[in-house]
Amino acid sequence: MQLGVIGLGRMGGNIARRLMKAGHSCVVFDQNPAAVTDLASAGAVGAANLGDLVAKLDAPRAVWVMLPAGEITESTIAALAAVLSPGDTIIDGGNTFYKDDIRRAASLREKSLHYIDVGTSGGVWGLDRGYCMMIGGDKETVDRLDPIFDTLAPGIGDIPRTPGRETFDSRAERGYIHAGPAGSGHFVKMVHNGIEYGLMQAYAEGFDILQNKDSTELPENERFTFNLADIAEVWRRGSVVSSWLLDLSAMALAENPSLSNFTGSVADSGEGRWTVNAAVEEAVSAEVLTAALFARFRSRQQHTFGERMLSAMRFKFGGHIEQHGN
Amino acid sequence: MQLGVIGLGRMGGNIARRLMKAGHSCVVFDQNPAAVTDLASAGAVGAANLGDLVAKLDAPRAVWVMLPAGEITESTIAALAAVLSPGDTIIDGGNTFYKDDIRRAASLREKSLHYIDVGTSGGVWGLDRGYCMMIGGDKETVDRLDPIFDTLAPGIGDIPRTPGRETFDSRAERGYIHAGPAGSGHFVKMVHNGIEYGLMQAYAEGFDILQNKDSTELPENERFTFNLADIAEVWRRGSVVSSWLLDLSAMALAENPSLSNFTGSVADSGEGRWTVNAAVEEAVSAEVLTAALFARFRSRQQHTFGERMLSAMRFKFGGHIEQHGN
Amino acid sequence: MQLGVIGLGRMGGNIARRLMKAGHSCVVFDQNPAAVTDLASAGAVGAANLGDLVAKLDAPRAVWVMLPAGEITESTIAALAAVLSPGDTIIDGGNTFYKDDIRRAASLREKSLHYIDVGTSGGVWGLDRGYCMMIGGDKETVDRLDPIFDTLAPGIGDIPRTPGRETFDSRAERGYIHAGPAGSGHFVKMVHNGIEYGLMQAYAEGFDILQNKDSTELPENERFTFNLADIAEVWRRGSVVSSWLLDLSAMALAENPSLSNFTGSVADSGEGRWTVNAAVEEAVSAEVLTAALFARFRSRQQHTFGERMLSAMRFKFGGHIEQHGN
Amino acid sequence: MQLGVIGLGRMGGNIARRLMKAGHSCVVFDQNPAAVTDLASAGAVGAANLGDLVAKLDAPRAVWVMLPAGEITESTIAALAAVLSPGDTIIDGGNTFYKDDIRRAASLREKSLHYIDVGTSGGVWGLDRGYCMMIGGDKETVDRLDPIFDTLAPGIGDIPRTPGRETFDSRAERGYIHAGPAGSGHFVKMVHNGIEYGLMQAYAEGFDILQNKDSTELPENERFTFNLADIAEVWRRGSVVSSWLLDLSAMALAENPSLSNFTGSVADSGEGRWTVNAAVEEAVSAEVLTAALFARFRSRQQHTFGERMLSAMRFKFGGHIEQHGN
Repeated sequence: MQLGVIGLGRMGGNIARRLMKAGHSCVVFDQNPAAVTDLASAGAVGAANLGDLVAKLDAPRAVWVMLPAGEITESTIAALAAVLSPGDTIIDGGNTFYKDDIRRAASLREKSLHYIDVGTSGGVWGLDRGYCMMIGGDKETVDRLDPIFDTLAPGIGDIPRTPGRETFDSRAERGYIHAGPAGSGHFVKMVHNGIEYGLMQAYAEGFDILQNKDSTELPENERFTFNLADIAEVWRRGSVVSSWLLDLSAMALAENPSLSNFTGSVADSGEGRWTVNAAVEEAVSAEVLTAALFARFRSRQQHTFGERMLSAMRFKFGGHIEQHGN
Repeated sequence: MQLGVIGLGRMGGNIARRLMKAGHSCVVFDQNPAAVTDLASAGAVGAANLGDLVAKLDAPRAVWVMLPAGEITESTIAALAAVLSPGDTIIDGGNTFYKDDIRRAASLREKSLHYIDVGTSGGVWGLDRGYCMMIGGDKETVDRLDPIFDTLAPGIGDIPRTPGRETFDSRAERGYIHAGPAGSGHFVKMVHNGIEYGLMQAYAEGFDILQNKDSTELPENERFTFNLADIAEVWRRGSVVSSWLLDLSAMALAENPSLSNFTGSVADSGEGRWTVNAAVEEAVSAEVLTAALFARFRSRQQHTFGERMLSAMRFKFGGHIEQHGN
Repeated sequence: MQLGVIGLGRMGGNIARRLMKAGHSCVVFDQNPAAVTDLASAGAVGAANLGDLVAKLDAPRAVWVMLPAGEITESTIAALAAVLSPGDTIIDGGNTFYKDDIRRAASLREKSLHYIDVGTSGGVWGLDRGYCMMIGGDKETVDRLDPIFDTLAPGIGDIPRTPGRETFDSRAERGYIHAGPAGSGHFVKMVHNGIEYGLMQAYAEGFDILQNKDSTELPENERFTFNLADIAEVWRRGSVVSSWLLDLSAMALAENPSLSNFTGSVADSGEGRWTVNAAVEEAVSAEVLTAALFARFRSRQQHTFGERMLSAMRFKFGGHIEQHGN
Repeated sequence: MQLGVIGLGRMGGNIARRLMKAGHSCVVFDQNPAAVTDLASAGAVGAANLGDLVAKLDAPRAVWVMLPAGEITESTIAALAAVLSPGDTIIDGGNTFYKDDIRRAASLREKSLHYIDVGTSGGVWGLDRGYCMMIGGDKETVDRLDPIFDTLAPGIGDIPRTPGRETFDSRAERGYIHAGPAGSGHFVKMVHNGIEYGLMQAYAEGFDILQNKDSTELPENERFTFNLADIAEVWRRGSVVSSWLLDLSAMALAENPSLSNFTGSVADSGEGRWTVNAAVEEAVSAEVLTAALFARFRSRQQHTFGERMLSAMRFKFGGHIEQHGN
C-alpha cells in the first residue's frame, strides 16, 4: 500500500522504515531535507514540499502526520487539507489532544476529507517490537488502511493468548484497535499514558522505601541495605508486579544501582495532565494518576511557595524556626 | 490548688505562671537550675530534685510533667512513680503517643497511682490565650483536678456560643474536655495535629496556585500577579475559609509577601505520623491528612531516589534524557 | 449610589437589601415577577425587563448580574450588552469561570462597556455578616463603584487587625479587594473554594478517625468512644485548628452528634474542579485540594468500575472471591 | 534434600508438591488429617504432630511453616522451637510482619536455632510458574538450603535476560534472592505488595476513566463507548503499560466486559498497610501506594462519617441540602 509520511523524526522515520521493509511504498517529507534524503536512500520517494508529496501519491491518498503535538501539527494539517482532494485521508499519529481531533475531523468532513487519529505506544523500541496502536476515525477508512496498521503493529508474537478471545476482534491481539470515532484513539492513548505515570510512580515509591531502609534514623536492628538491582530482577520472575517497566528498571539498576546518572527532575507531557482533566470532567476519583503527575511537578522545584507558607505558619503559631535548610 | 511541675521550658514555665497568676501554688523542678530559680522568683517553690519536689507537695499529690515526648518523659515518669505514694497523680502534658499512655496508666494503676494525659494546643500563644486541653484519665481524678484545668483553659471569652449546647458539658465551651480514659486525651490531640497539617497544606496549595498564576508558561492574557497579603487579609473577613491559621498567614504575608525569609524545609512531629498510622489501623481513608504529611517529607529532600527511578525508566523506554536539571 | 440588580434569588435579593439598608437605590429584575414585587415592597424600583431596567438607571449605569454560572449568565450578559450604552458597566457576581470573564471583558471592551467580576463568599450568612468580595476589572471602574463594595463588605468589625498593615490597601481589612484585571476576582474566589474543599476534607477525615476509634477491629484496650460535639467545641477555644468551618461543625454536631440526618453524598461545584485544572495548568502539586475533590466524587457512587477491576485482578491472581459484599 | 512442611493449604501443599516432583523428600503436617493423607498419597511422609514431624527428619532439620500470618504462625513456631535441636532451621514462608521476624530470629538464635523468612509471590499460579522468593536470614543457612529455593523458583525460563547482569548473583535471574538478615525477605515482599496495590489502582483508575467516557454528563460529541476488553488486550502488545496484571485484566474483561460479576468491595491485607507505615517511618512520600490502600478502605463503606461531616458543613454555610442520595 502507498502512504505519505510527514515528519521524519525518530518515530516518523521508523514508521516509514517498518512499512517499507514489509513492501509498502512511502512518499516522505520533512522540513529538514537531510531527513528526506536519508529515507530516500532507504527506498522512500522523497518530496520537496506538501504539494509535491500530494502529487506523488495516488488517490485516494493517505498521509500520516508524525509531528510534535500543537502548533506545528495543527498548521501542517491545515496546509495539507488545502492541497488534498475529497476522499483523501489525514492520519495524525502524534500526541494530539483528543478534543482537537474531534474539532478537526468535523471541519475536514465538510471538505469530504477523512481524519484518523492514531495513538502510538512503543517509543524507541517500536521499530523492532512494532507499534501498539489505538485508532480513532470512521470505520470505512480505518478498514481501508488496515494493511498499514497491520504492518506497523507488533503482531501476535509469542505473547500468550488471552483465553476466550476467539470470537473477539483479532486486531487487538495483533496490537491495534479501532477504538471508535475520531478522537477516541488519542483518548485511549492519553489514558494509557496516565496509567503509565501511575505505574512508574508505584515502582518509584516502592524502591524509595527499599532504598531508605538503611536510614540512620531507624532503629539499628531494623535497618537493611538492599541490592535494588537484584530485587528488580527477581520480581521479573513469577511475581505479581512483573511488567515491561520493571524490565527497564532492572536494566537501569543493573547499569548503575544508585542511579546517580540521573538527577530526578522529571518531565511530564500533555497526556498525563489531560488524563487528570478527563477524570475531573467525568467526576472519576483518580488519586493515583494525579499523585503521579504531581510528583513530577514537585520533582522539578527546589522548594515551592506553599512549603514556605507552611514554614511561615509554623513559625507564627509555634515559634518554629525553619529559615535554614536545604 | 497545689501542683508540681516538672520541665520548665516554654510550655511548662508558662503553665506554672498562668496557674500562679490565678492563685494556685506550684512546686517546680527542671534539670536546669536557672529555670527553677527563674520561676521561684515568680512565686513558685523550687525543688532540687524529684524527691524534694514530692516532699514539698501535700498528699494526694499531682505532678504535671511537661517534657519532650520520648525517652526523657518515660524515664522521668518512672523515677517519679518510684517516689510518689498511692493516691498521687502523674499528669503527662507533653506530646506522648497514646499507646504509651495506655501502657503507663495500666502499670501505674498497679501501684495505686493515677495517670492523666493532657493534649495541649495553643503553642506560644497559650500564656495569653489559655490552653485548649484534651484530657484522658479516670473521671474521679480529672474531676478533682478541675481547678487546675479550669485556670489553664482559655475560658468562654468572646467566642460566640454554639446554639443548643445549653445541656452539654460546659467544660468544652471553657476550653477543655475529659475525652475518656487514659490515652484518649493525647489521641484527640494527635488527631487535632493531623487536621492541622491538612488545613495548613490546603492553604499552602491554594496560595501556591495564586502565586504561580503569573507564570510565563501560561498564555499571556491569562496571567495575574496577585497581592497575597491582601488576599489572606480579605479572606479573614466573612469568607468561608477564615481561621486562626489564616490569621497567622495574613501576618506572615504582611511582613514579607514573598516569604523569602523561609526556605520551605518543613519539619513534622510524631502526631502527624501517628494520625496516618491510626487511619491505616482503623481502615479510614485519610488522603488529605496523609498528603499533608508526605508534602513535608518531600519538602526536606533535594531529590528522591524514586524520582531518579522515574528518570531512569523514561530514559529506557523513550530515550528521554533528564540527567541535567536542578 | 444607584445599582441595577438582575437575579433576585437568595444572593441577589440579599445584596439589594443590604445596599438599600445603607441608602443606595436599586433597580431590580428577575424572571420571576413575584421576586421583583417582593423586593419593590422593600424599597427597590422594579423593572419589567432588561430594557426597562436600563431605562430606569442613570448613565453611566452599573448592573449587577447575580445568576447561576453558565448559559443563563452568558445570555443575560449578551442581552444586557445590547441595551447598555458606552461607559456602562456589567458586574458578574456569580461563580463564573475566570476564562469566560477574560473573554467577555475583551468583547465588551470593544463596545466601550466595562466588565467587573466579583467573587463573593459568605453564603446564606452574607446579609448579616456582609460579603467577602474579590473583584476583577479595570481600576477606574472598580474605584467608581467603591461605595457599593464598601457597603456590601463586612467591614472591619471586631476581628483583630493584622499587625503591620497600616500602609497597605485598607479595603482588604474591610472585606474586599481589587484583585487585578477582569477574571482575577473569580480566579481568587475559585482558589478560595478549592481551599475550602481542602479544609473541609481535613476536618472530615480527622473526625472520621475519632469516630472509628471504637471499632471492634481494634484491640479492646485501645478503643475510645468520643463525644465529637464536645471535641469540635473545645477546639474552637484556643486551638490551632479553630475556624469558621469548625464553628459550623460544632453546631451540626451539637444538633445531631451522629449526623444521621445527612447521607454523605456530597456535591461539588465548578470552582473545586477548576482549581485542580489550574494547578495542573501551572504545574503546581495540589494533592490536598485534589484529594478533597475526589473524595466528593467517590462519595456519590455506590461502587466504581475501578473497584470492580481491583476485585477482578485479585480473583485472577489469588483466587480471592469478592463477589459478595455491600 | 529433605524438608518438613507445616501447613498444607493451597500454598504449602503446592510447595511440597513442586519439591517432590523435583526429587526432594517432604515430611508434612497439618491440623487437618485429610490434608496430610492427601499429600502422603502424593509421596510425602505424613506426620501426626510436630514432635512426630521432627522425629522423622534428619538433623540438621529444616521446617517450612506455611500458615496464615499472626497467632497461628507465632504459636506454631514457638511449639516447633521447643522440639527442635540446635542447628535446626525454621522457615517462615507466610506473610509475617518483618519486625516479628527480627524478634523471632533473635530469640531463636539464643537456642542456636536458625530462622529464615521467605516472602513468596506467585499466588495460585506458583505450582506451574514457580515461586518468586525473597529470602532473609544468615548466609550460611540460606546457602545450605539453596537446593530447596532453586527448585521452588521459576528458573530463568524464556524471560529475556537483563543486559549487564553477567557478573551479578545469578539467583535473582532464577527467581530468588537472599535479601539480607532475618526480616529482610518479608520486608522486600511487603514492599512488593505495596507496589502491587499501586499498580492495580493505576489500571483501575485508567479503566474507570475509559468506562465513564460515555457519561451523559459530557457534551454529546465528546462521548465514547469503549470496548475495554480490546483495550486491555491491545496494551499487552508492545505498549509501555504491558504487565502480568494487565494480562489478568484482559482475561477478566474478556470473560465479562462489564465486570458485573464483581461488586467492588476490595479487601486489603497487612502488607499494604505495613508498607504505608514503613514509608511514614522512613519519611518517604508514598502518595500512590497510600492512595491505593485508601481506595480499598473506601470501597468497603457505603458512606463514611467524614462524608456526612462534609454534607453537614455545606448545609450550615450554604443551606445545601444533601440528606437524600444513595
